[in-house]
Amino acid sequence: QFANAFFTTEKKIEIAKALDAFGVEYLELTSPAASTQSYNDCKAIVALGLKAKILTHVRCHMDDARLAVETGVDGVDVVIGTSSYLREFSHGKDMEYIIQTATEVIKYIQSQGLEVRFSSEDSFRSDIVDLLSLYRAVDKLGVNRVGIADTVGCASPDQVAELVRTLRGVVSCDIECHFHNDTNCAIANSYAALQNGATHVDTSVLGIGERNGIPSLGGFVARMYAADKEYVKAKYDLPRLRELENLVADAVGVSVPFNNPITGYCAFTHKAGIHAKAILNNPSTYEILKPEDFGMTRYVAIGHRLTGWNAVKNRVDQLGLPLCDADCKAITSKIKNLADIRPLSLDDVDKLLRKYDEAKVTDAHHAILDSIDSPDQITRL
Amino acid sequence: QFANAFFTTEKKIEIAKALDAFGVEYLELTSPAASTQSYNDCKAIVALGLKAKILTHVRCHMDDARLAVETGVDGVDVVIGTSSYLREFSHGKDMEYIIQTATEVIKYIQSQGLEVRFSSEDSFRSDIVDLLSLYRAVDKLGVNRVGIADTVGCASPDQVAELVRTLRGVVSCDIECHFHNDTNCAIANSYAALQNGATHVDTSVLGIGERNGIPSLGGFVARMYAADKEYVKAKYDLPRLRELENLVADAVGVSVPFNNPITGYCAFTHKAGIHAKAILNNPSTYEILKPEDFGMTRYVAIGHRLTGWNAVKNRVDQLGLPLCDADCKAITSKIKNLADIRPLSLDDVDKLLRKYDEAKVTDAHHAILDSIDSPDQITRL
Repeated sequence: QFANAFFTTEKKIEIAKALDAFGVEYLELTSPAASTQSYNDCKAIVALGLKAKILTHVRCHMDDARLAVETGVDGVDVVIGTSSYLREFSHGKDMEYIIQTATEVIKYIQSQGLEVRFSSEDSFRSDIVDLLSLYRAVDKLGVNRVGIADTVGCASPDQVAELVRTLRGVVSCDIECHFHNDTNCAIANSYAALQNGATHVDTSVLGIGERNGIPSLGGFVARMYAADKEYVKAKYDLPRLRELENLVADAVGVSVPFNNPITGYCAFTHKAGIHAKAILNNPSTYEILKPEDFGMTRYVAIGHRLTGWNAVKNRVDQLGLPLCDADCKAITSKIKNLADIRPLSLDDVDKLLRKYDEAKVTDAHHAILDSIDSPDQITRL
Repeated sequence: QFANAFFTTEKKIEIAKALDAFGVEYLELTSPAASTQSYNDCKAIVALGLKAKILTHVRCHMDDARLAVETGVDGVDVVIGTSSYLREFSHGKDMEYIIQTATEVIKYIQSQGLEVRFSSEDSFRSDIVDLLSLYRAVDKLGVNRVGIADTVGCASPDQVAELVRTLRGVVSCDIECHFHNDTNCAIANSYAALQNGATHVDTSVLGIGERNGIPSLGGFVARMYAADKEYVKAKYDLPRLRELENLVADAVGVSVPFNNPITGYCAFTHKAGIHAKAILNNPSTYEILKPEDFGMTRYVAIGHRLTGWNAVKNRVDQLGLPLCDADCKAITSKIKNLADIRPLSLDDVDKLLRKYDEAKVTDAHHAILDSIDSPDQITRL
């Protein structure tokens, strides 16, 4: 699923198509009640005829619901705040009135033949009895899904597991969950929700949304992939994920976070000597995500002070140079010394390896290493 | 705790002092066996005489242990791979030999009067019986802590809870945990570990380390703050966190991630109309982290298409302008229309409010609004 930040209509259409091609099941669009462009964008995206179902998200209010229906979406997500905080400070309505309004709005949307999800805001700080009463009431009205939302991002996975398990025993409809990352548990919470009976979770590309820190699509896919690789690969076109993230990152003018599990260098670049040795022997030792499945290649950084000779030897083999283990160890020792001054690029390392190999013909290879005192000298070789 | 990426000695010292001032209990430095500079850096940081204890992290090997002791650190973290993957592909040693080597290394470090932590690598894919046997053996030797490491980042919070609970019943020493964020559960896993009997968790500033994606110090603090605000405020100097993150980000040449829970705009900027209304009435409604506690201020973005008149009115009050609710609603409607073209800056909004207020004296305020068709016209007012 998908929340809009600030995008032009053209960009929204491009992103919607990319999400559809990736394989997401639902796209949730900004409320058509938010502005004229939001209303027109809903219509434009509905008109694309994508495989994904199109939803929009509105307040629990007849005016909003009518606007949503007008846009031609497949379903409407209706939201109302239920926590004591929100009851007092935001809309000030009591629970009986909430159920009454909800009933009117839900029946109207159903009468138009659309899917309905009904969700509370700030579910983790709502009174549990109020919450369950409300969900049971809307479940009896035949909503397709009820939704739990950790609007402030305060929930931890154990709390999520407990609330979802309890709710699972109360309603027979599907359960959707919406988390925020304020305390860095959004993806773990989504996973805990699915483990305990939820059927749908909300994500957005790079976590961008009305309020940022929604579980990122890529991050959540990584979590699910670790749990059931074949299922995730069959369901989603994983190699499209990187371009999808880049598309959204460009549109909002940010760079993809450097420790992004899919597209960043966190998962697929390996640095330390002991790690690099193990990963070259068997990638699954240190990697839970296979880069090939995401349309990427593995890169082992070797020009730094923690490098090991196994990593250097692997590069020697890739370059097809006829150097022995003793050669690799001698070169590794030099790389470690030089990298104390500054890390070497792969080009630096390659040049050093090739020059060493050439010099070996005239037995000048030790002299070459001895002659280099700084990384800059490699460039001048 | 703290893992070093590539930093100069001067930068490491600056970061070590900043971490100490923030209030971290332990600093863990790169192995002195990694390179000459790493060795010298350990000595240099020990010589600072910080309040935090200084540890270094070495392979389970006598040579490494001797080097570590020479540097004068307070304690040594000894690590060995135990998963079947690592046994086969990395060091190829069997469990009996592992226990024998571990015993020699641990007894030596203890004989030098230093703290010892003993940890496995890839604990979540290790044979549980091997793992518990090893931990019980080193616990009987009197190590200060045993450590669990999710080296590949594959664990989920429920798995962490189970392993830590089991281990808690087997050893009497402290338990330390080390996670990676490959599947986005690193911070949730750290929290689950502490809930189930762990005493220490590893973090690094911005998650940077030998392999990136360690739980970020800021992110973990946010999680703990949500669980027990007063405890965290008493223990750490939270307003120093932002400068600490900026210091490290500058040193490695990255920008602080845009959805960083502490320093990014995720937690403390609020956009949507319904949210902004509630937060102005009572910040705790939508915020689980109080910006003031982190030395920051709250900012409600109002120049976008989802803005609400409550947010605009709040800004009017901040500016001290004598505009009524009807004025604010008229201006909000104009802002929403203009923001469909592009979002307005706070300067744009302020200028519009002031010009409207001035025009009201001559009853020209409606004319002003009518005359503006694009955000750029505000600049020219």
